[in-house]
Amino acid sequence: MSVKIPQSHFDLIDGPVLITLTTLMPDGQPHSTIVWCNSDGENVLVNTARGRQKDKNMSADPKVTLLALDPNDDFRYIEIRGVVDEITEVGAAEHIAELARLYMDAPAFYGHVAPADLAGKETRVIYKIRPTKVRTLGG
Amino acid sequence: MSVKIPQSHFDLIDGPVLITLTTLMPDGQPHSTIVWCNSDGENVLVNTARGRQKDKNMSADPKVTLLALDPNDDFRYIEIRGVVDEITEVGAAEHIAELARLYMDAPAFYGHVAPADLAGKETRVIYKIRPTKVRTLGG
Repeated sequence: MSVKIPQSHFDLIDGPVLITLTTLMPDGQPHSTIVWCNSDGENVLVNTARGRQKDKNMSADPKVTLLALDPNDDFRYIEIRGVVDEITEVGAAEHIAELARLYMDAPAFYGHVAPADLAGKETRVIYKIRPTKVRTLGG
Repeated sequence: MSVKIPQSHFDLIDGPVLITLTTLMPDGQPHSTIVWCNSDGENVLVNTARGRQKDKNMSADPKVTLLALDPNDDFRYIEIRGVVDEITEVGAAEHIAELARLYMDAPAFYGHVAPADLAGKETRVIYKIRPTKVRTLGG
C-alpha cells in the first residue's frame, strides 16, 4: 500500500524545510531527530550515516514518521507515516551533497563538520520512505 | 527514573516554540503532531482534547517523544523521550488559555476555532510527560 503526497504540501517535502524524523528504538520508544529530505516524486528520501541511532533503528524496524512544519505558517504542516522500503549506499554521497546545496546553498556540508574531515570516515546511506498514511493541516 | 531538562535548552520547552509530539498508534507506528507546551519545571505539559488520536494513543501507551527546534537556529534543538505520568482534566481549560496567551498573545484561542464555538463541546486534558532521556544539539 502506498499513498500519494498531496501537491498542496509537496513543497514541504521537496523544499529546504527541516523535518522531524521519528524512528523506533528497540524498546519501542520513539526517537526523533531533525533531518534534511527530498523526494523521488513518490517516496521521501532521507540521508544519514551508518552507525547512527536512526540508521540502526530504521534497519531494525521500518516504521517511521515524518513531520514537516511550514516555517512561515504555524498552522500548516504535513505528517507522513510510512515504511522504509529501501536502504542503499548507492548514490548516497551525491545525495547528501545535493541536500547540502538545497538546504545550505553549499557545495557540501555535513552538519557541523567540514567535508575534508569526513573523507573516508563515514558511509552515507539513503533511506527511501514509502508513505502509507498522510495527514495535512492548512492549505 | 527521571532526567532533568537542561537549562541550556529550557527556553525551547517553556517558551512559545511549536514542538513535535510523537505518540504511538495501536500498531506501533509513530504518530506526530504539532503542539504547544510548557512545563512545571521538571515535566513537560501538553494539552489536548478528549477523543483526539494523540489522546487515545497516550492513554493506551505512555511512551512519547518531543522535539523542539529553535526557530532561529537550524542546529539547535532538544529531544525529550519520556512517559506520560499523569493525565488530568483538572485545570486543563485554564492551562490551554495560558498556552494561548503564551503562543498567540490571545486570551483564548483553540487552534482555528473561536472559543465561543467550543464552549461545552470539548473536554481539555493535560498530559504530564516525565523525561527519561534528553538529547540536545547546539548550545
